[in-house]
Amino acid sequence: MTDPKPMTSRLFPQEVRAINVGLAMFAEAPAAHGATVATLDWRPPAEGDRDIGLLLARLEDDPADPVGRQVADANAAALSRLLGAQPLLVDVRPASEAIGLVGRQLLHSGPPIPWNRMCGPVRGAIVGAILFEGWTSTAAQAEELAESGAIAFAPCHHHATVGPMAGVVSPSMPVVVVENAPGGTRAHATLNEGLGKVLRFGAYDASVLERLRWFRDVLGPTLSATLQASGPIDLRSLTGQALQMGDEGHNRNIASTSLFVRMLAPWIVRTTEATAAASVLDFLRGNDHFFLNLSMAACKSALDAAHGIPGSSVVTAMTRNGVDFGIRLSGTGDRWFTSPVGVPDGLYFPGYGPEDANPDLGDSAITETFGIGGFAMAAAPAIVRFVGGTAADALEFTRLMGRITLGRNPAYALPSLAFAGTPTGIDARRVVDSGIAPVINTGIAHRQAGIGQIGAGIARAPLGCFSEGIRELAASVGLAAGGTVNGHTATARSDR
Amino acid sequence: MTDPKPMTSRLFPQEVRAINVGLAMFAEAPAAHGATVATLDWRPPAEGDRDIGLLLARLEDDPADPVGRQVADANAAALSRLLGAQPLLVDVRPASEAIGLVGRQLLHSGPPIPWNRMCGPVRGAIVGAILFEGWTSTAAQAEELAESGAIAFAPCHHHATVGPMAGVVSPSMPVVVVENAPGGTRAHATLNEGLGKVLRFGAYDASVLERLRWFRDVLGPTLSATLQASGPIDLRSLTGQALQMGDEGHNRNIASTSLFVRMLAPWIVRTTEATAAASVLDFLRGNDHFFLNLSMAACKSALDAAHGIPGSSVVTAMTRNGVDFGIRLSGTGDRWFTSPVGVPDGLYFPGYGPEDANPDLGDSAITETFGIGGFAMAAAPAIVRFVGGTAADALEFTRLMGRITLGRNPAYALPSLAFAGTPTGIDARRVVDSGIAPVINTGIAHRQAGIGQIGAGIARAPLGCFSEGIRELAASVGLAAGGTVNGHTATARSDR
Repeated sequence: MTDPKPMTSRLFPQEVRAINVGLAMFAEAPAAHGATVATLDWRPPAEGDRDIGLLLARLEDDPADPVGRQVADANAAALSRLLGAQPLLVDVRPASEAIGLVGRQLLHSGPPIPWNRMCGPVRGAIVGAILFEGWTSTAAQAEELAESGAIAFAPCHHHATVGPMAGVVSPSMPVVVVENAPGGTRAHATLNEGLGKVLRFGAYDASVLERLRWFRDVLGPTLSATLQASGPIDLRSLTGQALQMGDEGHNRNIASTSLFVRMLAPWIVRTTEATAAASVLDFLRGNDHFFLNLSMAACKSALDAAHGIPGSSVVTAMTRNGVDFGIRLSGTGDRWFTSPVGVPDGLYFPGYGPEDANPDLGDSAITETFGIGGFAMAAAPAIVRFVGGTAADALEFTRLMGRITLGRNPAYALPSLAFAGTPTGIDARRVVDSGIAPVINTGIAHRQAGIGQIGAGIARAPLGCFSEGIRELAASVGLAAGGTVNGHTATARSDR
Repeated sequence: MTDPKPMTSRLFPQEVRAINVGLAMFAEAPAAHGATVATLDWRPPAEGDRDIGLLLARLEDDPADPVGRQVADANAAALSRLLGAQPLLVDVRPASEAIGLVGRQLLHSGPPIPWNRMCGPVRGAIVGAILFEGWTSTAAQAEELAESGAIAFAPCHHHATVGPMAGVVSPSMPVVVVENAPGGTRAHATLNEGLGKVLRFGAYDASVLERLRWFRDVLGPTLSATLQASGPIDLRSLTGQALQMGDEGHNRNIASTSLFVRMLAPWIVRTTEATAAASVLDFLRGNDHFFLNLSMAACKSALDAAHGIPGSSVVTAMTRNGVDFGIRLSGTGDRWFTSPVGVPDGLYFPGYGPEDANPDLGDSAITETFGIGGFAMAAAPAIVRFVGGTAADALEFTRLMGRITLGRNPAYALPSLAFAGTPTGIDARRVVDSGIAPVINTGIAHRQAGIGQIGAGIARAPLGCFSEGIRELAASVGLAAGGTVNGHTATARSDR
């Protein structure tokens, strides 16, 4: 075996060294003749969509252009509200009281979806919530009730709330109350049930309902009394510490949960009768993910503060209902932009495979929207290892997310990246322009209600909804695809 | 300005590229003539000490030589006992009972040392222990008593015990009892007092003595009752988790402490009256270093199992009494090899500097001896950052320690090094041969008793005691410097 002879000729008297941009096949011919070819991973902006490309050009930060100035200023304001968030856990209250859920109202994760389009785990969780509330006494009746239109379904996100996986919230469930005073926002989330048979994966057997009753009667009131005694808990500080302890705030929560329990334990003992205190501490000991829902509510409280700034291309929600992936942008109000959602790339528990998996599900991508979770992967190499990656891959995920975000959050420093902050403030312009999809750490649910978690992995957000968001944002600032505005033609300018 | 012209001549018609080994000045002349010089950081083995070099050559692993075979086999056995250790926390008992301290006996850290050579913080801690035991009622009387010879002083290490900093143990103090069943060993340590005014830095005011009484009357008995209810706690597993959470088991213990508290909290509540339970949980909440002493006892129990194997060059103890740095080797029995101890390289709290520092102090280097602490620095980049280093420096410390150790401990996996285990089993041969001093993470005590911690930093073990250990080990297997044994002359052999 000999190496191919370096390609030299009269035309190229020295060895040929080429850089190939774009299609890999361009490199094949010179490489076959012995040239050294470095391939640059390049794709045309906005996946080659000319209309979007022209809109993106007009939406670029540009102090000399009214639109470009508005977008830049709006994004600066949004980033400042994200970085300025100070989420405090202040209480745990029934959803009826904290969120104002009344009558036969149920919340679910993801963008809006009617009963007949809902996926198995969400339907199962709704049946469980109906049984838990005592609106019917059998599962069959519960399905009928849900089908009948007598239940008012709404996304958690419409009620300043987030829930992992199915994310179903009913009036009697206790929810955490997180206050972000600088942003003037409050956000809520249910209490995390742990692993195994749990409502959020669509299970609703007796053990699941029993746990929900215990949440309502013991865990919720205990945590409420404890927080009144201890005072508010600074969730930003807890998450900041946990990111230095191998958590990323989405799929790893053992550090934050342990810090939280250690912080509250004396107050639990002081405010609670011993048997109840021991049962609460037992539950918290056995649930490495208890902090996840607090982390989610904290992120939601920060993102809601950055929402509703005209002209801002900052993504303020990413969420999935198991059918659709939906996002909201700060500058486009309450409108959802959706794309079909796929199955995460993951590792399955023994006996299960991708054919069993439900498409990606839950509001927990609110953590990535705020710059932790997959965006803070550098903090938690154990997660990429789980799907066959290395510590270097973990760093790379975080670096890559830096290309689609507006800033770094110094409160969330990453030791393995020289204590740089997590990339924060997803800019929909950069997502569309680069084609780099936000990375989301996630659990994988079985597609049938009640079987539960069958794996975990890494999902990438679909790009279509970001393009749609950019179109709407452009329209909202007076740009139309291919048209003109303020005397400028919406075309790429030669001075860029 | 022009670059020096590349050195070419008839002798060297092409550009000269040199590798320089040893003294940097050799490189100066060719570099001045424009040669490219790469400098290799090389030092002669054993710092050029010919006698030790010859002994090291004879002590090398060598299946064809009886001595070489004995050393290799002994080290393999020692390493296997280190890796096979399963330290369990089984109880907390008074030192009188657990260690058998009787009468006026006090333990201290480091190798043996008489009262008149002891440093300020150790003297202060001894005064405090005498007052705590009620052997005298004033500090002046306590000093007199210590001076009089009426107190039997001994190193903690002589009683299967370890203590951080001054390491003073008196009969009424509660100590943790750690059992390593596979090794047939038990080890002990005092309970960690937290930061501020504490006995281990030589303070003995009323607050210090009050805390020690509370340890004796409340904390110790509570933990004992709790452990009887919960069953033994697996310290290897806890430390393994903590090393994936930013702890290195010596200067960072927040993850292990939090995991430990979360694990025990329900049992504390079940076994203890509410006021006492709350006070214990409050203390544990406020002390991020509580787990340090458990970590130390776990390491001691593993290293004692590897001690006493004839021919083994494995280091089974490294410790400091603030005057001497002492080590023991597995193959040289109870003998201590000592060198004067220096001041750690560190960062000082405001108002303090190196001139205030006591030379390095405490048995806590038992963690490095077992392969965590400074050896696991890759797990805790926050520690090198504290003294001005980076995450890359942290990896480098761990990699460097890999060059003086016999193996890796898979129970202690380091995420940032692709989950490689910590370097374990310090081989005194390799330390002497390479001149690479073991790295030790450490707190810095003020040289005057009672002022307390004034900084933290990184210390390097002095090399002299390792050379002395190697000489004694050589003698123990029948080698003498420059002499002959079994017909072999103790000289470097040409076939190496």
